[in-house]
Amino acid sequence: MQPEDTPELRQLYADFKTQHLNPLWTQLGDLMPRHPKPKAVAHVWKWADLYPLAKTSGELVPVGRGGERRAIGLANPGLGGEAYISPTLWCAIQYLGPKETAPEHRHSQNAFRFVVEGEGVWTVVNGDPVRMSRGDFLLTPGWNFHGHHNETDQPMAWIDGLDIPFSFQNDVGFFEFGSDRVTDYATPNYSRGERLWCHPGLRPLSQLENTVSSPIGAYRWEYTDAALTQQLLLEEEGYPATVEQGHAAIRYVNPTTGGDVMPTIRAEFHRLRAGCETPTRREVGSTVFQVFEGRGAVVMNGVTQKVEKGDIFVIPSWVAWSLQAETQFDLFRFSDAPIIERLQFQRTLIETA
Amino acid sequence: MQPEDTPELRQLYADFKTQHLNPLWTQLGDLMPRHPKPKAVAHVWKWADLYPLAKTSGELVPVGRGGERRAIGLANPGLGGEAYISPTLWCAIQYLGPKETAPEHRHSQNAFRFVVEGEGVWTVVNGDPVRMSRGDFLLTPGWNFHGHHNETDQPMAWIDGLDIPFSFQNDVGFFEFGSDRVTDYATPNYSRGERLWCHPGLRPLSQLENTVSSPIGAYRWEYTDAALTQQLLLEEEGYPATVEQGHAAIRYVNPTTGGDVMPTIRAEFHRLRAGCETPTRREVGSTVFQVFEGRGAVVMNGVTQKVEKGDIFVIPSWVAWSLQAETQFDLFRFSDAPIIERLQFQRTLIETA
Amino acid sequence: MQPEDTPELRQLYADFKTQHLNPLWTQLGDLMPRHPKPKAVAHVWKWADLYPLAKTSGELVPVGRGGERRAIGLANPGLGGEAYISPTLWCAIQYLGPKETAPEHRHSQNAFRFVVEGEGVWTVVNGDPVRMSRGDFLLTPGWNFHGHHNETDQPMAWIDGLDIPFSFQNDVGFFEFGSDRVTDYATPNYSRGERLWCHPGLRPLSQLENTVSSPIGAYRWEYTDAALTQQLLLEEEGYPATVEQGHAAIRYVNPTTGGDVMPTIRAEFHRLRAGCETPTRREVGSTVFQVFEGRGAVVMNGVTQKVEKGDIFVIPSWVAWSLQAETQFDLFRFSDAPIIERLQFQRTLIETA
Amino acid sequence: MQPEDTPELRQLYADFKTQHLNPLWTQLGDLMPRHPKPKAVAHVWKWADLYPLAKTSGELVPVGRGGERRAIGLANPGLGGEAYISPTLWCAIQYLGPKETAPEHRHSQNAFRFVVEGEGVWTVVNGDPVRMSRGDFLLTPGWNFHGHHNETDQPMAWIDGLDIPFSFQNDVGFFEFGSDRVTDYATPNYSRGERLWCHPGLRPLSQLENTVSSPIGAYRWEYTDAALTQQLLLEEEGYPATVEQGHAAIRYVNPTTGGDVMPTIRAEFHRLRAGCETPTRREVGSTVFQVFEGRGAVVMNGVTQKVEKGDIFVIPSWVAWSLQAETQFDLFRFSDAPIIERLQFQRTLIETA
Repeated sequence: MQPEDTPELRQLYADFKTQHLNPLWTQLGDLMPRHPKPKAVAHVWKWADLYPLAKTSGELVPVGRGGERRAIGLANPGLGGEAYISPTLWCAIQYLGPKETAPEHRHSQNAFRFVVEGEGVWTVVNGDPVRMSRGDFLLTPGWNFHGHHNETDQPMAWIDGLDIPFSFQNDVGFFEFGSDRVTDYATPNYSRGERLWCHPGLRPLSQLENTVSSPIGAYRWEYTDAALTQQLLLEEEGYPATVEQGHAAIRYVNPTTGGDVMPTIRAEFHRLRAGCETPTRREVGSTVFQVFEGRGAVVMNGVTQKVEKGDIFVIPSWVAWSLQAETQFDLFRFSDAPIIERLQFQRTLIETA
Repeated sequence: MQPEDTPELRQLYADFKTQHLNPLWTQLGDLMPRHPKPKAVAHVWKWADLYPLAKTSGELVPVGRGGERRAIGLANPGLGGEAYISPTLWCAIQYLGPKETAPEHRHSQNAFRFVVEGEGVWTVVNGDPVRMSRGDFLLTPGWNFHGHHNETDQPMAWIDGLDIPFSFQNDVGFFEFGSDRVTDYATPNYSRGERLWCHPGLRPLSQLENTVSSPIGAYRWEYTDAALTQQLLLEEEGYPATVEQGHAAIRYVNPTTGGDVMPTIRAEFHRLRAGCETPTRREVGSTVFQVFEGRGAVVMNGVTQKVEKGDIFVIPSWVAWSLQAETQFDLFRFSDAPIIERLQFQRTLIETA
Repeated sequence: MQPEDTPELRQLYADFKTQHLNPLWTQLGDLMPRHPKPKAVAHVWKWADLYPLAKTSGELVPVGRGGERRAIGLANPGLGGEAYISPTLWCAIQYLGPKETAPEHRHSQNAFRFVVEGEGVWTVVNGDPVRMSRGDFLLTPGWNFHGHHNETDQPMAWIDGLDIPFSFQNDVGFFEFGSDRVTDYATPNYSRGERLWCHPGLRPLSQLENTVSSPIGAYRWEYTDAALTQQLLLEEEGYPATVEQGHAAIRYVNPTTGGDVMPTIRAEFHRLRAGCETPTRREVGSTVFQVFEGRGAVVMNGVTQKVEKGDIFVIPSWVAWSLQAETQFDLFRFSDAPIIERLQFQRTLIETA
Repeated sequence: MQPEDTPELRQLYADFKTQHLNPLWTQLGDLMPRHPKPKAVAHVWKWADLYPLAKTSGELVPVGRGGERRAIGLANPGLGGEAYISPTLWCAIQYLGPKETAPEHRHSQNAFRFVVEGEGVWTVVNGDPVRMSRGDFLLTPGWNFHGHHNETDQPMAWIDGLDIPFSFQNDVGFFEFGSDRVTDYATPNYSRGERLWCHPGLRPLSQLENTVSSPIGAYRWEYTDAALTQQLLLEEEGYPATVEQGHAAIRYVNPTTGGDVMPTIRAEFHRLRAGCETPTRREVGSTVFQVFEGRGAVVMNGVTQKVEKGDIFVIPSWVAWSLQAETQFDLFRFSDAPIIERLQFQRTLIETA
């Protein structure tokens, strides 16, 4: 349905170029497809590949001012080598050697960490030291100073999630260096934020203004595990509690609003009973899972891939996906759903058998 | 500034009566005073007076269908004998004898219970049995079926708080009888609502719709105590955590929104260090305190009254008040603040020395 | 189901009185009825009765500091002579003689005026003179200074609506005297608020903070009439536009939020085609209508009453009502719906034939 | 601050590539700059260049199914030739010849049109024909079917604004073809949406649910002009009304919420008095202006460029800008501010002299 190729048309197109113009009619189907056709592809990274490379980085690459973090981004194979796991999200494995310190800085980009194994690092967020241990989900919302230090003789690795691609693409990011060391080397079991806020249904009377991001710095594994355990027990007892039969899940939320922990990133934890298979879903927006424990498979665009502890996979927008649990199957999940929902682009399709 | 008293004026006023009219100019100062001038008065009820009368009621008054509850309302001396502790709020001591059951019903009125001592009763809310123990704050939001049963050989008493006066005055209440017995005589330690919701910062993925009232049926003393303890510890360590020096406090909230537990009633718990005195405040709206533990005094309109465990006092709108702690001083508080704030009538005056 | 009448019970009840207590079981059915049983009754006031009495008041009663307003409240026959048209609402006819000024004051109570006939008065709200003319709906939200002056040689009457009963009952009101005269005797056709805000879908960039009440001081008849006319035309053309067949209606709203004009009062205008009958409704909360033009009837609790221009009727909570239009039938309506809805007590029952 | 270049490091970097990894430390400053450093550049397109090319397109390029629209996108010189005026926004000149029809389709992308000159086209949005005339701002929110037809013997051109780049980048778009012709060739002066909604402060009672986007299809020039005129008059009379001295402005809003017209696009109209200069601002997010009338200049990053009727310029994120009015200077503006604000990335810096 393109116009006839004539000298006049060629001249017109040349004039367009000169004048910094570009017609819609030559590219409509690509720019505005029938449904999302992401450049990003579904992909699995194996922990068995990631961790050794992180360890080697620990030997070869110093951590300090300038580079700031020994973080290795997962680069979606469809995105031209950029360190973007999806168009909106960054996911990296970060590695901190014995006694090392990652210096303090702050940025508009929202960040979290999730710990698939290990302990011994404290992240200091706005001066509040936060212990990092296996299963914990830890927040560094935009513009909070933060640095990390490893108190032990063992290295520690974890994953970072941020909205770096979104911020970069849309030119919203600010960055500021802070102290070259962390401002408080104390190693308390619980951060001050947790001590103020981690009492279910209780709000400090001194903290009545809602905050854009959650004031909870650490969502501890003990609570997550207990919540999932209770959902499966309630299901067994015959009460509604799970998302689907055999599929327990919680969303990490901001206690001042009940909504997502940060304006751009949603985080959840899912537990499937052995044998459970979820229905096939398509959703607008991109999502990342890391297997925390157990064995199973993810099916993306009809391709089944086995995954186990530490493995990370990304599901781009509108890719059909489902999970299959071989054993009890625990997965951490994060996504750009707050971006999608706040801008009213959400859509979900659940395929029936 | 009233018009001259003439036969014509008398005729006019008589005609007003006949036509169901009533002029503003004869009553302006009463109807629209310079500041709130409540009919309700500041008053203290002593637990030492209340409990024995509740006990006697237990002997003389059966509990069952029709009367529904062995609840004795605290009647503000300024409100003409009505069982209203303030124009908006109802506060009663409820008493349930050994092995007794209070039958199920539901009503638009929002209700809670607070337990100053004792244990052994379960309240069954929409079929979910909720243990009642000392220090617990328990919810029965509007239109939830509920009944209570005492599993023990000991009586148990607690206080009920409701918005009965508000609902009655404004004609908003519906009422429905339910089962003559409770629908589930199980006696679990934790209700299903707690098991789903009492994990700090974690929201069940199966429960993403916000609810008008909190889905938490019981706010346990262990959490309240821990939250207050942490606030005072943080204060000692030099961090902002308390409302005022020596004054820790939490608000009970709806985890789906971070806001008040019910649309008409706010509930809080306050702890003062021994020796702490709060500044004198005036607030729009009425509030009720019950001493949970410790000794101290309340000053209302300049009058100081000693209060101790179980004592209940009401502070009507715009009455000047402060608290003084002799020992560590723990107080449960509830008020009509959600009514006042949702309708934008809030005002506070803190008097400086 | 009451306890046996014994000397011990009588002693108990006497002790209750002494201790300012009042049991629930003797009064449950009254306090918590199966559905709202308002003391207020359905009632019609005829303009033909109201206006002459207002006129006589104009002759006998001065207007000025102290009495403040020559306003005659409609006293619901069920409410013991109080000048309350319902438990929450005040409705009065106000009368201002030629060249008279009603002095300035302000109060927490929210107020509006609606003009069923006449012109020539300006109400000055926070210094902004607002013309009052037939069909206009005019706002004086809480705590705005306001006074009125009549520029003409003719008296003028209109109705006032306020939340005085609610404010009085719940002790939320403050009052302050202002200037003995109005602060600006200018008589512009349009107030400054209208000039800033009355452009559909356009918001001044200098006014981006939402306000609790509408910043529009006057909702002009020309717009109301045009909106209703368009709804009926669209209905004729076959498009959805009316509430029900033959029944056009608009709600006056706060342009900063799209919600009600004030936190406690909803206001609407309804137009029925000749012959239209609305279904019978019951609603929680009280509502008042004034006929603006045309003839018809209101049916309340099964009783049909003819009403015409200027007549005012009140429908208490849960009273069954419907309207019948003999001619084209225009009615102004106000209610306490924002109170009911913000506190989550709303319920509606539409009876099917 | 990069690690020493050794064979081991090269091997590590090669392994990263193989495993689809990309380290942060080699690119931190680019990915997370101190402040936004957009690839997009400040640029001006002259109407005198745009219109003739649109006209030639009208001669050489048919409009119809497939290409869908004769729209020529303004391609930011910094964005590699893509038809993106900024990373989030699309801006095109669309041209429709005499008697032509652009067929119906719908897409998730939000769209508007603004008419700098001409008339005679109707855009049919979900079956509602909307007249397009000079100065009108017209909405096609996401997923509404729409097509256009030109009723006259004259061509007509206007600008389109959409969130195509944002939708494409984040994989959120769906697209569906509709009728090859428009569904209603009627040419009413006012659309049904306007007839229902364009009455200031009045909301149809049949439309009480808030909508994600504005239900107003056309914001007419007559209202915009009147609103700006009133602001400047009020300023002259000494009342607050303008954004800054000599600078009137309105935001187009959704009357159901008072907020932006669409979830991703903000639209405003600005009028400067002759001689007015705005302060220099930096803002997060990208914005586009089109001069509607008058002459003046825009200063971007310190470079002053004269602009006049029809000229379009883009200000990328955090670029310093100000406006200077030679004559009375009227400008239409749109931006991605709702994206920025809903995701909490907003920041503004106003430079003082």
